[in-house]
Formats: sequence, structure tokens, C-alpha cells
Amino acid sequence: MTTKPFAALVDWGTSNLRLWLTDSQGGVLAERQSAEGMGNLDRSAYPAILEGHLSALGAESDLPAVIAGMAGARTGWREAPYVETPAPLIGLFQHAVIPDGVTRPVYILPGVCQRENGRYDVMRGEETQLAGALEQGLDNALFCLPGTHSKWAMVEDGHIRRFSTVMTGELFHLISRQSILRLSVPEDADAEADPDIFNAAVDAALAPNFALTSTLFSIRAESLLSQGTKINAAARLSGLLIGAEIAAIQSDLRRYGKAYLIGTGKLTRLYARAIARAGGEAVMLDGGLLVRRGLLASAFSLFDHEFKE
Amino acid sequence: MTTKPFAALVDWGTSNLRLWLTDSQGGVLAERQSAEGMGNLDRSAYPAILEGHLSALGAESDLPAVIAGMAGARTGWREAPYVETPAPLIGLFQHAVIPDGVTRPVYILPGVCQRENGRYDVMRGEETQLAGALEQGLDNALFCLPGTHSKWAMVEDGHIRRFSTVMTGELFHLISRQSILRLSVPEDADAEADPDIFNAAVDAALAPNFALTSTLFSIRAESLLSQGTKINAAARLSGLLIGAEIAAIQSDLRRYGKAYLIGTGKLTRLYARAIARAGGEAVMLDGGLLVRRGLLASAFSLFDHEFKE
Repeated sequence: MTTKPFAALVDWGTSNLRLWLTDSQGGVLAERQSAEGMGNLDRSAYPAILEGHLSALGAESDLPAVIAGMAGARTGWREAPYVETPAPLIGLFQHAVIPDGVTRPVYILPGVCQRENGRYDVMRGEETQLAGALEQGLDNALFCLPGTHSKWAMVEDGHIRRFSTVMTGELFHLISRQSILRLSVPEDADAEADPDIFNAAVDAALAPNFALTSTLFSIRAESLLSQGTKINAAARLSGLLIGAEIAAIQSDLRRYGKAYLIGTGKLTRLYARAIARAGGEAVMLDGGLLVRRGLLASAFSLFDHEFKE
Repeated sequence: MTTKPFAALVDWGTSNLRLWLTDSQGGVLAERQSAEGMGNLDRSAYPAILEGHLSALGAESDLPAVIAGMAGARTGWREAPYVETPAPLIGLFQHAVIPDGVTRPVYILPGVCQRENGRYDVMRGEETQLAGALEQGLDNALFCLPGTHSKWAMVEDGHIRRFSTVMTGELFHLISRQSILRLSVPEDADAEADPDIFNAAVDAALAPNFALTSTLFSIRAESLLSQGTKINAAARLSGLLIGAEIAAIQSDLRRYGKAYLIGTGKLTRLYARAIARAGGEAVMLDGGLLVRRGLLASAFSLFDHEFKE
């Protein structure tokens, strides 16, 4: 590296770790990725893993590292307690914690929790992506982060005002692989391959009085009753589940007009299509870029302040 | 047995077989039960299993047997094709089929299917319970049969007019044992142990704009955020799922005023409570008695007619 790195920025999730050395503008100088996620790590393993990646990139021993994600969970490296909604995206750094077992400066950013009106919810990592979106001027917007557990977040005046986790991805997996519907959804089924079926299922889910659990079995019954014709059951199931998710935030979507979709790939494209069916506009944002921006913003604040736990 | 049996009546489902020898009034003279369900049987195994149970009860070799349930599925003993809605409960016997490999008279009753308006659905076995309810005068009524896949059926003038299968039991099992919520729902959790939590969850599901998949994760988040207090997550999950099921038929429930619940035990009691929260009256019926009545009615019709395939 010819440019001296400003910081190591780390997105340390349940399944994966992504680490970047960047300059002070956020330009990526070097990066690493691995499957050493929180889900398969002992607490004691974190320092050596971090140092291993940093030394593989030739980082100096005093380069600071800023970490977001599940590494800050109670079952992660060191718990960084949740900041409660309404959570100021610009102030997350104030709640960072410093883990043991490392000599370099390391900061773990907090997650965000919601208790208001009994709508309990938690996030860890997504708040840093939202902080990155704030850096590019999105201080009042509706965000959707598709995934195993997708998140919807309403950002108002730079605060996470309200958010909601939806288990759509996990339910799709369980229902298509393990319920009676597994007999109708082939393992290699492609939910994107049949837009008409997907769209019709989204529309059904957006209609008044739609009842998801009372509709699922019809997928199995249809394949039993139409032996000859193959239906794309994966497209239908995916459309019903994603449609039900979007139906639940339809009034917010109407108010904002658009939703910023943080993600890439097939799942994000399906969400974009479903948002369009609901009359909204979907704007794609790159999650990797956003998390680096959010981490970098926290890094600046942390290095400017005398940080005390 | 001092009284000579009139017929062998068999409820042959996916997981279990129940067999009764009855007199012509339906009085039970002898019975057998086993786990030899369709789900774990080869087609060729059926004749010997039936004969084994009948000879264990000392039934004569010409005693006719009438069978309802999954034994008539495509993957059962011999397929008895579905009768389509509106399906006359009194005429099911006309669609019975005679399997191979037995010398005594054996009749397998058909299931019922629905294709109307794309509301695909199928049942096998429940229609015979409904035929039994017809025998006791219930020719216009709303029925609910709780189970792994619960069924709701609207019977009008002795016909199954419309029905719906809801995967509530299977979803409860998958979500509580295999999703992220497994971390919050203890394996020995008793959904009936906390009526207040269950009722509140049912009420939430019955409220306008309820969105099941956007609510489930709050169960996990609440247990993360309230370390000290234990909540009965099984009661909440069960209330949300059963409530969502009842919300979907709420307009029918209002119209009929009451629902006849066919079943016994804890699950049926939870359904009765949820039906009451929705403003309906739940009347319990004994499923074993109903299936015998339905089988017996078919037996009379079959023996009266010269049966031809």
C-alpha cells in the first residue's frame, strides 16, 4: 500500500466478517472477507482473528479498528448495549465499547433496540449502514434491508424513529424445505424465473383481507390437483411472503413514496419488484459502501474525542 | 362379542389407523388403533395390515370394511379420486373404490377437493367426519378441525360448499423448534399455561391491519430485551398463529355465530378460546364418534346399492 491507511473498518456479522483498510476518504486500500462470523466463534477467538487479518494486510500495530455488527452482541466479543429508539445515527460512536485482549485501539459500535408500544425489536449492523446513508444525505427516508431477517427502518431527522424485523427469508427457507410444501417446491426452484406468478402472488398479498397462513396450503393443493401443469411454487411462495411483508408497511411506503433498498442480488430485485407492485419506488443502495461510510464517520468522531468507556 | 358386527369402520390417516367393529346402530363392539399410517406404508402392505387387525378382533372373513382417509390418496392403498365442491356429504359413498388384494368387501371413500376461484384445497378423512355431523342434523354449519393442518369447512344444505386448510400447527412447530424463535420458546413450553398472554396475542391478530410475519420477531426481541422477566413465548406464538387463522374466517364466523370444533385436548381448547375472543361460540364435537357415524352412513348406502366401480 502506498497510501497509509486511516483505519480498519469491520462489519462483523453472524455468518461473515468483512474488513477494509481505507484512507480518510473511505477509499478502499485493501480488504479481507471470511466466514468467521459470531455464530461460530468463542469469545476468546476474536482478538487473534482480527490481528490475523490485519497482519495479512500489513497493517501497523497501532492502526485503530472500528467494528459494527454481531461482534457487539451479548454472545459476541464484548457486549455493546443497544441504543434505544429514537436513536441518533450520528451519535452511535458515543456508545462504542473497547474490548479486552488487544493492544491496538479497537471500538465496537452498539446496536439499536426498540421498546416503544410493545413493538420490541433489535438490530446490530444495519444501524451503521443507515449511518452511512445519512452521510450521503438521507436523513428522512424509509429503508429496507432484505435478508434472512429483513429490516424496515424509518429514519426521521437523522434518527432511527421506528423499525421492524420480518422473518421472511427464514420462513421461506423453513416452509419450502421442511413443511408439506417442500413436496411442491423443487430444491433448485428459482423464484425470479416466473415474474407473472410472483407478481400475482404479491398482488394477492397486498389485497385487503389477505391471510397468509390460510393461503399457503393452496400451493400444495394446486400442485396435487394439476398433475400435468407445473406451477412455479417457489415464485408463488416468495411472492406471498414478500407481499405480506410489504403489505404491513404499505402506509409508510405511501407516505414516503419510495423505499431505499440496501442490498444486491436476486432477493433485492424481488423486493424492488414487490415494492413497485405496491405503488412505491425502489432505489438501490450498496450495503458494503454504506457500512464503510457509517464506520468511517464513527471512526472520525471516535478519534476526535477522547474516548472513555 | 355377543352381537354380530355390522361392519368394520376404518379411519386410515397419514400417521395412524383406527378401526372399529360396530353394530348397525354404530355401537362399538371392538376396536384397534395403530401407528400404521399412510405415511410409512408401502402400497402392498395394506391388505395384510387390515386383515391382521380384523382377525385379532375375531371378525369373520366376509365382514365388509369401509375406509376413510389417506388410504385413498394417490400414494395410499388405492386412489379414490376427489369429489369436487360443492360436495354432497350424503353421496360420498357413490365415489368409493374397491382395492385389490382382499377377498372381503372393502370400500375406500373419496376425499374432497376445491378448485373454485383458484382457492385450491384438498381433504381426506375430514369429509367423513362432516358426513357424521350431517347424521346428527348439522346440515348448515361452520366446522373447524384443529390439527397439524387445520380445516375450516362451510356446510350448506348438506354439501361442503367451501373449505380451507391452514398450516397453523405445522408452522407453530417449525417456527418454535427451528427458527430464531427457538431460542425464546422452551421445548417443554405450554401454550395453555398463560391465558392472558395467549388472549392478548389472539386479540392482536384479530385487530385490523395485523401482519403476522412482521410481528413474529418481536417475540425474540422481547426476550432479548427483558432478561429478567420470562415471557411465555409459546403462548404468544400460539395466540398469534391461531388468531391469524381465525381472523381469516371472521366474517364467516360472524355469519354463522358459532363454530363446531371437531377434536379434543389442549389444541381444541385453545381454538375454543380464540373463537370466543372473536365473538363466536365454539361447540365441541367428538371426532371419533363423527367419523364412525359418517362411515356407518356410507356403509348402509353401499350395502343397499349394488356397488359398481
